[in-house]
Amino acid sequence: MISFVCDYLEGAHPEIMKRLAETNLEQTPGYGQDKYTASAISKIREACGCPEAQVYFLAGGTQTNSTVIGSLLNGNEGVISATSGHINVHEAGAVEYTGHKVLTVPAHLGKMDATDLDSYLRGFFADPAWDHMVIPGMVYISHPTEYGTIYSLAELSEISAVAHKYGLQLYLDGARLGYGLMATGTDVSLKDIARLCDVFYIGGTKVGALFGEAVVFPRGNAPRHMFSMIKQHGALLAKGRIAGLQFDTLFTDDLYFRIGRHAIEMAEKMKAIFIEKGYEFFIDSPTNQQFIILTSEQREMLSALVDFEFWEALPDGRCAVRFATSWATTPEFIDYLRTIL
Amino acid sequence: MISFVCDYLEGAHPEIMKRLAETNLEQTPGYGQDKYTASAISKIREACGCPEAQVYFLAGGTQTNSTVIGSLLNGNEGVISATSGHINVHEAGAVEYTGHKVLTVPAHLGKMDATDLDSYLRGFFADPAWDHMVIPGMVYISHPTEYGTIYSLAELSEISAVAHKYGLQLYLDGARLGYGLMATGTDVSLKDIARLCDVFYIGGTKVGALFGEAVVFPRGNAPRHMFSMIKQHGALLAKGRIAGLQFDTLFTDDLYFRIGRHAIEMAEKMKAIFIEKGYEFFIDSPTNQQFIILTSEQREMLSALVDFEFWEALPDGRCAVRFATSWATTPEFIDYLRTIL
Amino acid sequence: MISFVCDYLEGAHPEIMKRLAETNLEQTPGYGQDKYTASAISKIREACGCPEAQVYFLAGGTQTNSTVIGSLLNGNEGVISATSGHINVHEAGAVEYTGHKVLTVPAHLGKMDATDLDSYLRGFFADPAWDHMVIPGMVYISHPTEYGTIYSLAELSEISAVAHKYGLQLYLDGARLGYGLMATGTDVSLKDIARLCDVFYIGGTKVGALFGEAVVFPRGNAPRHMFSMIKQHGALLAKGRIAGLQFDTLFTDDLYFRIGRHAIEMAEKMKAIFIEKGYEFFIDSPTNQQFIILTSEQREMLSALVDFEFWEALPDGRCAVRFATSWATTPEFIDYLRTIL
Amino acid sequence: MISFVCDYLEGAHPEIMKRLAETNLEQTPGYGQDKYTASAISKIREACGCPEAQVYFLAGGTQTNSTVIGSLLNGNEGVISATSGHINVHEAGAVEYTGHKVLTVPAHLGKMDATDLDSYLRGFFADPAWDHMVIPGMVYISHPTEYGTIYSLAELSEISAVAHKYGLQLYLDGARLGYGLMATGTDVSLKDIARLCDVFYIGGTKVGALFGEAVVFPRGNAPRHMFSMIKQHGALLAKGRIAGLQFDTLFTDDLYFRIGRHAIEMAEKMKAIFIEKGYEFFIDSPTNQQFIILTSEQREMLSALVDFEFWEALPDGRCAVRFATSWATTPEFIDYLRTIL
Repeated sequence: MISFVCDYLEGAHPEIMKRLAETNLEQTPGYGQDKYTASAISKIREACGCPEAQVYFLAGGTQTNSTVIGSLLNGNEGVISATSGHINVHEAGAVEYTGHKVLTVPAHLGKMDATDLDSYLRGFFADPAWDHMVIPGMVYISHPTEYGTIYSLAELSEISAVAHKYGLQLYLDGARLGYGLMATGTDVSLKDIARLCDVFYIGGTKVGALFGEAVVFPRGNAPRHMFSMIKQHGALLAKGRIAGLQFDTLFTDDLYFRIGRHAIEMAEKMKAIFIEKGYEFFIDSPTNQQFIILTSEQREMLSALVDFEFWEALPDGRCAVRFATSWATTPEFIDYLRTIL
Repeated sequence: MISFVCDYLEGAHPEIMKRLAETNLEQTPGYGQDKYTASAISKIREACGCPEAQVYFLAGGTQTNSTVIGSLLNGNEGVISATSGHINVHEAGAVEYTGHKVLTVPAHLGKMDATDLDSYLRGFFADPAWDHMVIPGMVYISHPTEYGTIYSLAELSEISAVAHKYGLQLYLDGARLGYGLMATGTDVSLKDIARLCDVFYIGGTKVGALFGEAVVFPRGNAPRHMFSMIKQHGALLAKGRIAGLQFDTLFTDDLYFRIGRHAIEMAEKMKAIFIEKGYEFFIDSPTNQQFIILTSEQREMLSALVDFEFWEALPDGRCAVRFATSWATTPEFIDYLRTIL
Repeated sequence: MISFVCDYLEGAHPEIMKRLAETNLEQTPGYGQDKYTASAISKIREACGCPEAQVYFLAGGTQTNSTVIGSLLNGNEGVISATSGHINVHEAGAVEYTGHKVLTVPAHLGKMDATDLDSYLRGFFADPAWDHMVIPGMVYISHPTEYGTIYSLAELSEISAVAHKYGLQLYLDGARLGYGLMATGTDVSLKDIARLCDVFYIGGTKVGALFGEAVVFPRGNAPRHMFSMIKQHGALLAKGRIAGLQFDTLFTDDLYFRIGRHAIEMAEKMKAIFIEKGYEFFIDSPTNQQFIILTSEQREMLSALVDFEFWEALPDGRCAVRFATSWATTPEFIDYLRTIL
Repeated sequence: MISFVCDYLEGAHPEIMKRLAETNLEQTPGYGQDKYTASAISKIREACGCPEAQVYFLAGGTQTNSTVIGSLLNGNEGVISATSGHINVHEAGAVEYTGHKVLTVPAHLGKMDATDLDSYLRGFFADPAWDHMVIPGMVYISHPTEYGTIYSLAELSEISAVAHKYGLQLYLDGARLGYGLMATGTDVSLKDIARLCDVFYIGGTKVGALFGEAVVFPRGNAPRHMFSMIKQHGALLAKGRIAGLQFDTLFTDDLYFRIGRHAIEMAEKMKAIFIEKGYEFFIDSPTNQQFIILTSEQREMLSALVDFEFWEALPDGRCAVRFATSWATTPEFIDYLRTIL
């Protein structure tokens, strides 16, 4: 049965599989000291417009978030997230396991509002008892968010300005960054992100790789001993070249962006069909995740024909579900969807 | 230049690459809920003679050690290791990061001695101030050890008996387990390990996989919520099937053991050449890591022709170096070695 | 200037000072192995109606909360608190420092509602992705709350029933327990608390001691090695007898309850004056903390004559302030207040 | 029965009790914002010759060690201690609970040797795999040590120089500092310690206070948000004035030094008696702890007449025991000892 459950259902983009196969018997040093990793770093620096960037390749999203946040926060600092942020909800307490609190501001369709953030921070530092509380040290946002929504350049700039006004670092979780960067109508580029954030990661696992996330410190601003802290968090890959080679491939001939664009096109076609067939949307998402509202009957009927993800029950008895596209979604999948809706 | 630096220089065993390619476009659920992972678990249970075993696939060795140890220890318990144990030396403090102390007993060529362990534990519980100290909760050993040495069945049984006498769990780090199990003359089988240990892992990264370690709780004795704790440690793979498929392949037609045996045969040939050429050994290792003593001149001469790992400086000015074989070491590599020694 | 800022402005109740002086030169063993600690434990067991209770004496509230919560939670479990809970707001992240998340439900004048708790837990375990989330392991409430409010026996029983229905432990923070137990009209006794909670503490610092909190496991249900975990958290007192003696005194001739009752009487007199003088209340508190609303002018005028605590700014430009009584509040303090209001 | 078990058998020095009683009903702000704490800080600054010093008062030794070490170390840094260091042996893993490893160098009668330290650090940074290991960030010594021995000024200067040569901070645990500073023949003053260390604490619990340790950052070099980190570690005292007042008293009219000197004089008398009576010493200690060797018969006989601490069993069947003096040891105690030896 065809599945739209998520964007990590298949292996890796064929171009990655090809290069893994081609280079399989080459001998390279471990722990990211190999030429493929070096090449990937060089290409990512260029794509970000950051010749000084430090880039580290980790295996997965939760690992990346806890390693970055745990390594960058000091003392009793916490990280501010929208309530719906992945670190606040779906990482089984990985950030708290590093000893730091996730502080929350309201989520607006998954997004943080710069005004809420400013209000939180102003209130915090105005509180006479602030030094009995968790001191905000970092702002965490995801782009696209867990709800498929994206920030505009103006919104991102504002959040960055507010964070920096109060001396906090801005960290962007780009687990699905490729889909955000290639969303129709977005005015946010990779270079903008590199310019506005203090650290971010370019997601591979959900954008065509077998696994892997590229953490970028755009201005060479990684903390001292970042390599050792990655090891300390259990996040250092012995065969680092497997991650390096995948990112080298993703950043060759714009593969990362082509994957993103393909998934967006498939999502837009899917969206058009849902609209055409009269379905209601839970969220209007411009990225590869589409959130549809189904009645119980519709859900039952459809789930016999296609796989998708249950998202949440709605007060009126209906439910929201998610259909996701990826590099691997073919036009035939979309055509099939048209026949069954 | 040919390299004998370590056993994780290449990609994956070709059989693994083949199956990754064949299944690449299949859609499977994430987080290890896929059929390949299920099949791998089933095969590992059989190989271990443990139909009740719980098996979890993680990405790398340090991650596995800190996840297992951090999840199994309670309160202020610590883990006892030989001083040379990987967790005590080369994991950048990953175990301590989980809040637990590594307690040490002397290492004998990398091995823990059951008598030392017994003496440590007897002394600990006899100390009137024991409850002001770190309470031993687990024994950690590696097999093969970091020095390529292996335990005999009698030694392993004794350590298991001592650990259990004092109520401690026994955890075996099998990063290179395949090479230990296939060492010439060993009397320790995988089933013995499953019988004598409370938890252990079967190493993939260093034995033919791109990455991956299989943690085994042989009697279904994983702690409650182990899955969530793996997520908490950042060790849950989204595309779990990539690890599952690799282990499914390794445990099909005895591939894991054939890889181990091949590396041992290559190591034995290598050893014979070193002996023949009059080299002295730092340690007499029966596994895939060989430790040779070189003079400065020899080291300089050889390092221009072949890659190997510097191990440690010796008091007499010479040094110990390591030559490792793996699934990827060919007879040609060994022949070449003969020509240059 | 007379101060009503909080309930820890003075030293200790004179009866405590007297016994500290009397026993000062006696020699006793350290770490709580002394006769005064034994006597205090015995009296607390009796007051709680729990002959099996285990009792530990720690120095302060935040220390007690992080030691108890950090020692009792397992793996990736979190503790559920009302949003206004002390552990969620005013402990500088001490709970998160132990690796565990504080999960929140709405606060109703500082109190947790059993219905909210039930709804949270039902929702959690119904979520198909619950094992990617922080697993609730404990419920934390304070009595009286941070807003001076108290639970009724029915409310406390319901919370206990809900917590236990889902297998969670109930922990009650009694930093100001004496004032709650002696509130006019309360139907909650110390024995009720001991019966309904799995662990709680009887606050000393804010109820007449120099320092000290008595943690009670009412049914001998402390985790293994609790003593060592207290040491691990830096919470073991070398001269344990100083804490033991203070609690021995507090639980001799009902001193703890007399202190509580005195503060309540003072608070009720104070309340009557504020009502009489036409002041508005921010919260209707039955305990020793009274929350009054002041205009800017009133605040300015009063703060020149008496010390009280700023609590929070109100949207209409006025502010809420706190006046607290304690064992040390004299009728003269209250009389003075009448003259200046 | 008279006890020489340790130096924390009694309450507090009478002068402290007197001032606690005198000030008992005064109202002061909490958390160390009171005038007694301010006065104590001022006097400690003067005694240290450090007008810029930051001083924090905590409750006990283990708490102080884990708060200071946990707050000052970054990332995967560890703290180097002699194997016999209190943090390595008798704190139930409190330092590891903060996520940091205790690294060890050999102990020489409880003391660290600058040469060993230098050798450790030189070896560490020369190791090509150093970034896979725990990075040394701090040196921990105790003065007097756990064996009652003390550093000479030359030794302390050397350790300080070595630590600083490699960029590490030097932390001195002064749980019994008063006894070290007043040891006959010592050439180390409090000002020397303040000059040579980056942080240290002046112990109160074992030197005349009910409880309390004064952490000193001699050059105003406390990390940002130290106050909040103390709170995070559960080490902030609500009635901070109780600790402040005790140190204010200890540093008035040299009481701290007079206490130290008194205990040393008592210890020297005790020592003379043991020598005179032909007892053998386990360690030649110049401070208030004396370590004597007893046969089983002697131990049995003496323990019926006086309390002392069993220290360790010796290979020849005899044992080492400890007799400690303090501010509270009277000449009568010593006279009694003479009669029974």
